[in-house]
Amino acid sequence: MIEKNNKRTDVNTIGEFGLINRITKNFALKQKTSILGVGDDAAVLDFADVKTVVSTDMLVEGIHFDLMYTPLKHLGYKAVVVNLSDIYAMNAIPSQITFSLAFSSKYSIEAIEELYEGVKLACDFYNVDLIGGDTTSSPKGMTISVTALGYTSEGLLTKRNGAKVGDIICVTGNLGASFLGLQILEREKQLFLNQPGIQPELGDAQYLIERHLKPEARKDAIEYFFKHKFTPTSMIDVSDGLASELFHICKSSGVGAFIEENKVPIHTDAQVMSLKFNTDPITCALNGGEDYELLFTVNEKDLEKVKYMPDIYIIGDIVDEKDGIKLHTSGGNIHDIKAQGWNHFDS
Amino acid sequence: MIEKNNKRTDVNTIGEFGLINRITKNFALKQKTSILGVGDDAAVLDFADVKTVVSTDMLVEGIHFDLMYTPLKHLGYKAVVVNLSDIYAMNAIPSQITFSLAFSSKYSIEAIEELYEGVKLACDFYNVDLIGGDTTSSPKGMTISVTALGYTSEGLLTKRNGAKVGDIICVTGNLGASFLGLQILEREKQLFLNQPGIQPELGDAQYLIERHLKPEARKDAIEYFFKHKFTPTSMIDVSDGLASELFHICKSSGVGAFIEENKVPIHTDAQVMSLKFNTDPITCALNGGEDYELLFTVNEKDLEKVKYMPDIYIIGDIVDEKDGIKLHTSGGNIHDIKAQGWNHFDS
Repeated sequence: MIEKNNKRTDVNTIGEFGLINRITKNFALKQKTSILGVGDDAAVLDFADVKTVVSTDMLVEGIHFDLMYTPLKHLGYKAVVVNLSDIYAMNAIPSQITFSLAFSSKYSIEAIEELYEGVKLACDFYNVDLIGGDTTSSPKGMTISVTALGYTSEGLLTKRNGAKVGDIICVTGNLGASFLGLQILEREKQLFLNQPGIQPELGDAQYLIERHLKPEARKDAIEYFFKHKFTPTSMIDVSDGLASELFHICKSSGVGAFIEENKVPIHTDAQVMSLKFNTDPITCALNGGEDYELLFTVNEKDLEKVKYMPDIYIIGDIVDEKDGIKLHTSGGNIHDIKAQGWNHFDS
Repeated sequence: MIEKNNKRTDVNTIGEFGLINRITKNFALKQKTSILGVGDDAAVLDFADVKTVVSTDMLVEGIHFDLMYTPLKHLGYKAVVVNLSDIYAMNAIPSQITFSLAFSSKYSIEAIEELYEGVKLACDFYNVDLIGGDTTSSPKGMTISVTALGYTSEGLLTKRNGAKVGDIICVTGNLGASFLGLQILEREKQLFLNQPGIQPELGDAQYLIERHLKPEARKDAIEYFFKHKFTPTSMIDVSDGLASELFHICKSSGVGAFIEENKVPIHTDAQVMSLKFNTDPITCALNGGEDYELLFTVNEKDLEKVKYMPDIYIIGDIVDEKDGIKLHTSGGNIHDIKAQGWNHFDS
């Protein structure tokens, strides 16, 4: 490898977000058509009357997925869904994807076709067109890169930076289940490696495992917003855990947040399993990640509309920036929420 | 790895195009906004008055690039350029890119910044905005995925399928130089590995090496078409060698081609070097690849306009499909042209 500059800072010292900041700060937007670039769930392009929304994600074997317990069909499905989730998080409708794949010769065509079966299932379910991609070999392992495009109108577009003091903080579905599903899969993998031939015990973990292997994007929430004619003031999808996403919204909007622990939705199976793993359920919700639920804020005037939304939970309020980002625990204490999230560069 | 289906066909048996056909044939376009999906240089989306053009490419270390002789800045530049080349090949103006990167912890931040310096140079030179991407770690090596977006109007859009019998076949610049540049770099790498410390002999190979490490996309050709108000009947960029691209145009358009060997532009340095490598220069042009020149066809009525285009070469004519794709050699013989192109799955 050729490295001109001899200075060497390890990536671990600044983390993924630090790195992204560092490498993107020199890119100014020049095109009249570029409305929003790096820094939100997706980029926004103004080609005419509608806004085109673009998002991209890369999944690497051994980092984002383990083929020992991930069926390829599920992997294909998930790779699409995690991108569509970013489009929905802009209050936009996904319409197209490109799907690129690098894989080593250890994979058969049938394996690759199984992967694409999952891609097709996701495209059909979410009514999205596959419009391009690249397929190439890799010396080792598998890498997937997906770019999703969607559209929305100027008035409906929902970024991270619109939360105002007094807004209500909401989240769809429930949090922490995917993280716990992953813990179970990792545990069973280790048991299997130590004692090949052993049958996995997944009895009461079906729901959690499915949340990890086959997540869904919250298309229904966006449809509800459109149908009931109200627009969140800010929105983000929960891919890195509630804490990290709250930080993104608060930082972008210049506000603080106050969250009630007992309002944060955690599935019964997740509560039971987190105790088996000796973890606090709220920790799984705050720092777990890969839930692909939507975290959003709404103006108080829309409270009535939000209340009747199915599968929605009001978890707190937007407060002044100086009041920080706090959790009011079930035990009555108030703690600072710290953003951990995933850091794929951690060793 | 989990493979549900036990049938195992090796990828080598059907090649990259066979695989792409196989995995994309089940994807029908559903969205009103999808005008053109998989099968051309880029996808075309109709969001309003302009057509949005989208293209994507993946570059894998050890397959598409070797960091032993590829400076990271050049790599970043090239990764962008090869995508823009696809946009230009639709007779469109590139306007945005997303850039995704997976890399192992052996790379320092400075190394990654050097890569992005190249990305920035390309964005500045081609007036394109970086609007998104993903940055993640990889257990080994580096993988780059770029998606480019651009725009054009319905009347200007140039696909592969519009070539008609009697059209003139043209190519920009010259062919084969990038392939020979790569051969030199590979030769010097082997010499260095056998005898570390040896200084590379690159004296008369500067031009060829630059064509390989820092290719340019033919923005100028598109600007000429727009300025002189004429539109090719078909167009493709030369990434896999002239032979392969001719086949794409002929197959899509349902026509044949007749090429004059002595009209195919080959740089003097490439001619000299190909003889040193005991290869026929025309073989390098036909099967070399990575030239990123434009191959296009024009109607006879536009002959005068093409003639005065700088750096353009008329290399043959479109003929009837039943007449095949032939080369009239300098020696006076007529040969079938066979499409080889790159096959990254070859071992």
